[in-house]
Amino acid sequence: MPNDASPYAPLLAHIARYVALTEDEQAALLAELAVCTLPRKACLLEQDHVCTASYFVLQGCLRMYFISDKGAEQITHFAIENWWLADYTSLSTQTPSQFFVQAVEPSTVALLDYQQQESLLSRVPKLERYFRLMMQRVTAAAQMRILYLYGQSGEQRYHHFATAFPDFVQRVPQYMLASYLGFTPEFLSKIRAKAAHQALRSPSSGS
Amino acid sequence: MPNDASPYAPLLAHIARYVALTEDEQAALLAELAVCTLPRKACLLEQDHVCTASYFVLQGCLRMYFISDKGAEQITHFAIENWWLADYTSLSTQTPSQFFVQAVEPSTVALLDYQQQESLLSRVPKLERYFRLMMQRVTAAAQMRILYLYGQSGEQRYHHFATAFPDFVQRVPQYMLASYLGFTPEFLSKIRAKAAHQALRSPSSGS
Repeated sequence: MPNDASPYAPLLAHIARYVALTEDEQAALLAELAVCTLPRKACLLEQDHVCTASYFVLQGCLRMYFISDKGAEQITHFAIENWWLADYTSLSTQTPSQFFVQAVEPSTVALLDYQQQESLLSRVPKLERYFRLMMQRVTAAAQMRILYLYGQSGEQRYHHFATAFPDFVQRVPQYMLASYLGFTPEFLSKIRAKAAHQALRSPSSGS
Repeated sequence: MPNDASPYAPLLAHIARYVALTEDEQAALLAELAVCTLPRKACLLEQDHVCTASYFVLQGCLRMYFISDKGAEQITHFAIENWWLADYTSLSTQTPSQFFVQAVEPSTVALLDYQQQESLLSRVPKLERYFRLMMQRVTAAAQMRILYLYGQSGEQRYHHFATAFPDFVQRVPQYMLASYLGFTPEFLSKIRAKAAHQALRSPSSGS
């Protein structure tokens, strides 16, 4: 059985928060997983290729992006430790993807092949529950994201995001954060300069 | 057992596309459902209330919206026949919602109470699979929506949506469609006038 030194230990710990797998069920899961160690900028998925697996971030950070009509990279999603990521349209229809999935920093990722996943979930129904709860969490996040995109200015959106995920804001390159939030790096610089200026004028607010 | 005259017949038919329930499993599901017949503009969920159920549209159309800082209604989601809708953040955390869910037209909706759903799914694991696949479909749609929001102009987005869902575009009030697509009713009128003008200049394209 896997011990703490297993590369999959974070995934098993994450699953244990939601369902209690027996040793046999854990073994059935581990038999279907692959682990992938990626250098920075390595791609797990490229545009026009079929997404064949879901990715669980054991360590590191992934980004999902597409190339706009103007040839620019537009980031749509990030995933850090304990998040699943895939192009779920390409995955469920097995048709070519419009997205790239790339490592933002050196990363270790568990890969669950789509065909194997469907068979595994038939054999281990507790994993249906786990993945249903994961998909429900992603759906909840997507609904709130549309609320913030439609209901907040770019500046409000940045401050909301920076308050909710302070470590993440420090971790990813600022031009990637700007792309994800839907504005230019120049606009992000202006927001940050304004925030720094306000903090200087009201030093007590920083205490 | 339910027959075609049961109000839940469309839901059972929808579930049967994904999993094969026994008669006992169908009965267990039906025992937990409520049916709600709504006049136009009736609300299933209001802001600051907790979302206590998921809604499956048997007949009609629902919209989910929030009130912006400026006091305007901003539509984030629609659901027509065979779609599930809920505020999944409020539902899964049982905290007050930021959204309203309202009938756009006279509608009949199946309600699955959140607490009952969790217990039901433990008893009928096939429904874990059904809801996992539903959530995966919603996640796929949300990813593509972010791609269109970030990658297309308002005009491209309208034409893409009108091509993908021609009946739906005829069905909902145009000011609601404009809100959902993220622009003003005036902008939508301009796009439609331009499209009509182009169709007149190139009549062969309409054949």
